[in-house]
Amino acid sequence: MELQRPIRHAKISPNMTVSLLVDSLSGCAFGAGRLCEAVEIYREMLNDKDCTKFFGLAGAMVPAGMRQIVSDLIREGNIDILVTTGANLVHDIIESMGLHHYKGTHAVDDIQLKHDAVNRIYDVFLPEQHFIRFEEKMQSVFREVPNKLSITELLSRIGATLDDDSSILKSAYDMRVPVYCPAIQDSIIGLQAWLYKQTKPLNVDVFDDMRGLIDRCYEAKRAGVVIVGGGVPKNFILQSMLVTPRSFDYAIQLTMDRPETGGLSGATLDEARSWGKIGEKARSVTVYSDATITLPIIVAAAKSIR
Amino acid sequence: MELQRPIRHAKISPNMTVSLLVDSLSGCAFGAGRLCEAVEIYREMLNDKDCTKFFGLAGAMVPAGMRQIVSDLIREGNIDILVTTGANLVHDIIESMGLHHYKGTHAVDDIQLKHDAVNRIYDVFLPEQHFIRFEEKMQSVFREVPNKLSITELLSRIGATLDDDSSILKSAYDMRVPVYCPAIQDSIIGLQAWLYKQTKPLNVDVFDDMRGLIDRCYEAKRAGVVIVGGGVPKNFILQSMLVTPRSFDYAIQLTMDRPETGGLSGATLDEARSWGKIGEKARSVTVYSDATITLPIIVAAAKSIR
Amino acid sequence: MELQRPIRHAKISPNMTVSLLVDSLSGCAFGAGRLCEAVEIYREMLNDKDCTKFFGLAGAMVPAGMRQIVSDLIREGNIDILVTTGANLVHDIIESMGLHHYKGTHAVDDIQLKHDAVNRIYDVFLPEQHFIRFEEKMQSVFREVPNKLSITELLSRIGATLDDDSSILKSAYDMRVPVYCPAIQDSIIGLQAWLYKQTKPLNVDVFDDMRGLIDRCYEAKRAGVVIVGGGVPKNFILQSMLVTPRSFDYAIQLTMDRPETGGLSGATLDEARSWGKIGEKARSVTVYSDATITLPIIVAAAKSIR
Amino acid sequence: MELQRPIRHAKISPNMTVSLLVDSLSGCAFGAGRLCEAVEIYREMLNDKDCTKFFGLAGAMVPAGMRQIVSDLIREGNIDILVTTGANLVHDIIESMGLHHYKGTHAVDDIQLKHDAVNRIYDVFLPEQHFIRFEEKMQSVFREVPNKLSITELLSRIGATLDDDSSILKSAYDMRVPVYCPAIQDSIIGLQAWLYKQTKPLNVDVFDDMRGLIDRCYEAKRAGVVIVGGGVPKNFILQSMLVTPRSFDYAIQLTMDRPETGGLSGATLDEARSWGKIGEKARSVTVYSDATITLPIIVAAAKSIR
Repeated sequence: MELQRPIRHAKISPNMTVSLLVDSLSGCAFGAGRLCEAVEIYREMLNDKDCTKFFGLAGAMVPAGMRQIVSDLIREGNIDILVTTGANLVHDIIESMGLHHYKGTHAVDDIQLKHDAVNRIYDVFLPEQHFIRFEEKMQSVFREVPNKLSITELLSRIGATLDDDSSILKSAYDMRVPVYCPAIQDSIIGLQAWLYKQTKPLNVDVFDDMRGLIDRCYEAKRAGVVIVGGGVPKNFILQSMLVTPRSFDYAIQLTMDRPETGGLSGATLDEARSWGKIGEKARSVTVYSDATITLPIIVAAAKSIR
Repeated sequence: MELQRPIRHAKISPNMTVSLLVDSLSGCAFGAGRLCEAVEIYREMLNDKDCTKFFGLAGAMVPAGMRQIVSDLIREGNIDILVTTGANLVHDIIESMGLHHYKGTHAVDDIQLKHDAVNRIYDVFLPEQHFIRFEEKMQSVFREVPNKLSITELLSRIGATLDDDSSILKSAYDMRVPVYCPAIQDSIIGLQAWLYKQTKPLNVDVFDDMRGLIDRCYEAKRAGVVIVGGGVPKNFILQSMLVTPRSFDYAIQLTMDRPETGGLSGATLDEARSWGKIGEKARSVTVYSDATITLPIIVAAAKSIR
Repeated sequence: MELQRPIRHAKISPNMTVSLLVDSLSGCAFGAGRLCEAVEIYREMLNDKDCTKFFGLAGAMVPAGMRQIVSDLIREGNIDILVTTGANLVHDIIESMGLHHYKGTHAVDDIQLKHDAVNRIYDVFLPEQHFIRFEEKMQSVFREVPNKLSITELLSRIGATLDDDSSILKSAYDMRVPVYCPAIQDSIIGLQAWLYKQTKPLNVDVFDDMRGLIDRCYEAKRAGVVIVGGGVPKNFILQSMLVTPRSFDYAIQLTMDRPETGGLSGATLDEARSWGKIGEKARSVTVYSDATITLPIIVAAAKSIR
Repeated sequence: MELQRPIRHAKISPNMTVSLLVDSLSGCAFGAGRLCEAVEIYREMLNDKDCTKFFGLAGAMVPAGMRQIVSDLIREGNIDILVTTGANLVHDIIESMGLHHYKGTHAVDDIQLKHDAVNRIYDVFLPEQHFIRFEEKMQSVFREVPNKLSITELLSRIGATLDDDSSILKSAYDMRVPVYCPAIQDSIIGLQAWLYKQTKPLNVDVFDDMRGLIDRCYEAKRAGVVIVGGGVPKNFILQSMLVTPRSFDYAIQLTMDRPETGGLSGATLDEARSWGKIGEKARSVTVYSDATITLPIIVAAAKSIR
């Protein structure tokens, strides 16, 4: 058994940069070690010109305040393909309309909140009336899109209507980054589509997006992925490689989910190797900590000039 | 502050029934207390003739061995509406073809597994070749369904072709229980649909299922839900009530996910009250333990004659 | 890669016994599979006449209602050596004085509780005034014990004074089962000792108990351990084998703690093999679920006649 | 319900300092929000000249590489009272002897490690032979200390013999910071004491340290605590206030443990208010993420000049 890398204890200096902090943690173990490995992999992935960069965004990252980080990554060319949840897109659209989420608390009487018409997402509060404005927005979008289109096209059309450079959907539209959202109906967008379809036709095909995604996978010389949370985005990205001769070369997962319950969200990235989703020689790491903490650190460190 | 219910310490007897065990735990706290509350709520919900019974099945419950429990619940009339993931359906179809999952181990070299053409789901092993048979099955199904249909209709058509009463899809078909699977493309079914659509037309609309689901919600006098895991099924079920004047009257969640990361899977059921998804006076409880342990106990206890 | 044990799906029958439920889960994976493995190991361990049976009890198991299970195990001869926390002993003594813990709720205003003089342990409430009675009890015990004794002797002396066969300490006293509590000062007992020592001498040696424990380890032909939670009891038991030529032959851990943070509570039992605490050929399993659920099931199943 | 603090989305700049990163996260929610609150509380606590600063160090923080951070905090006067585990002290002493821990991997054959005489702590490897040197060290220490002393005195004596300014024990000795270790026998120190006591007298009293600790609590005008992990250090610190008219004014906890299992490690800091351990008006926060990530960030941000 090799014993070649002594643990080097972290040393903190006042006013140190995030990048230096990560350097200082690079001789540490447990979560700190994983974090540094994620930074290394991300740096390598971002520097790899032949790498198609996937980004999976689950969890309530937009309500939590992670929207600008993602839209900046898109605008900087660091995301080629985004897969996310309906909820993150709903909240992105709401913010792009100038409507805010608010810092609240998780220790609260939810029935009182209901009476006050405030919706809660852990410690984030959202006035229910935002959804009235959101409804107007979505109904007007539906009226203007073709009767028949794919989910990605629908999202691109929504993005085009937004007047907010911090928006994920707008940034993706501007940068021609496709946004996949397999379970789009599992969100207020789904409820709005139901409403619209009561009177007018709208046909969004479930499977139409597969082709574009898999074509991208075929074209990729190399592929890397950052998975924030797990959920549908994680599997949808990883499985897309299954029908190609290729597999992911870089993979980073930021999650608190655990492997032992057997669910895909918490599954180790090694498990994905048995399926051929991640390559035998790929570099991969999971950082088990709150993604609202680890994503900003990893992005800050990876962006820094060393 | 009321101090009226002294903790009664559990007493274990040899050969006691599950129902008696639950009775014995009913004076306990922490997870044991939550488990007993779940049993109580489930008993009340199953006895409520006016209650429409939803069941959300996320996680890899079918590979883990929970398939018969769910199909029995369907056949016994204890599930009116099932919402699940593509993965659970894929593995249900595989089993219904006489192909097995195998007990393996999570402590294994995944690259070796890849070489051996064995896919891993935590401690479950699945021969990769099963998917060749699965492909034949799915392509033949696609050839026989209408060119245009909803996800629910597609799943019903698949169910009709299965010759296995233990199958979830077959049981749902037999009992006319609709099966919703919002992110169906996030599964091998999605890859098969992509393959099929390369040469033949198939149009499965994303939003078509909303109407039937929401109609059911409108019609329900009362509504109850068992949520195994979280994920898309959890939110898709809970949000369906948002557009009705009603909300869920009973809600049970079995999960290891935690609230603090803000994701919907781990969100408390109380949070759902702020949105009006769960009613102010509804009974709800989350049991924080492995669902492959708690689901069987709750079902066994709720089924027992007291 | 061997694929020899197909997953057998659990089948639930009304009024089934816990033992039959466990049998039904024995072909399942994830937590259910681990639970069944724990039952198997525990049955084997309890049937092994040459096995010295250790029991580690951390967590707030007594306030939660698990006291009778532990005291019954002691009285039935199924625990030879108990290692626990000061808190569990304090709450055991309180209950043995006829003072109750109460079922409360975790969703409560803790400042209001403080004003009401009610202490909270998750969803268990405890009137603060119980501690006045506890103080009288402890001061009277201290007055009657020798000035110099070991922790185990002190606990045995306390046990002797209790008039409650359901008490863990009393049962241990009656059965001559030594109770180890390394961090006894980390509990209200510690505060009471501080009070007592302000006026009178009391000398309880930290290390005196090691000898008896390690002697037991040397004498053991075989050794098995059930670890509820983790904490000091887990390590104290496991490390005791380090200085003997022997190691544990059976080990069961019931916890929700996770390995990734590197703490000993969440460490896998395999990790303990690298240290030689658990033997190479030992059977071991960790069940990742709430111990107030899994302990009663495992005990009920292991006690059943098959 | 007040909606006054809109979520401000984090913005990442290349080469930003940790302090600016924290500022940027201060308008975010979930873990990011908690982290920023911890930084705020820690800054306030460090600037409070009348605040006695407690530090609880559980988990395997020393093997993970967090030793220098703690010893620097001691030398800078930012820790007045340290409570930790025997394991952290054992590994601190080992490092101070010039013996290293090594970066390994958690995915390893532990039986092979045993054959190679390498002990594992998650992804840290430790050569077993280090303990031979450790034994010599401890036996020589025991020979030189008085026959009768308290745990704190014993640790101070050990600290005095170390020739390593990065050592926690040495730094505490130099700075006259008392180190409490209630379960000292639950560590290799305990095994060494057992060995020593086979031939020579040594009497270390369990309760002697309570007086000094509680005196400090009485003297404190205000009190603050940083709790890394949970375990014995957490409760031992918090309970020390119970017998004083005072309670903690600042409290920060860094842990991945969860409240729902009822154990003290995962208990919320609010729960401690019901007991009067933390004051009604105290500022407190728990950050649910790996402490090897959050501790360095919080220390770096708190140290920075703003």
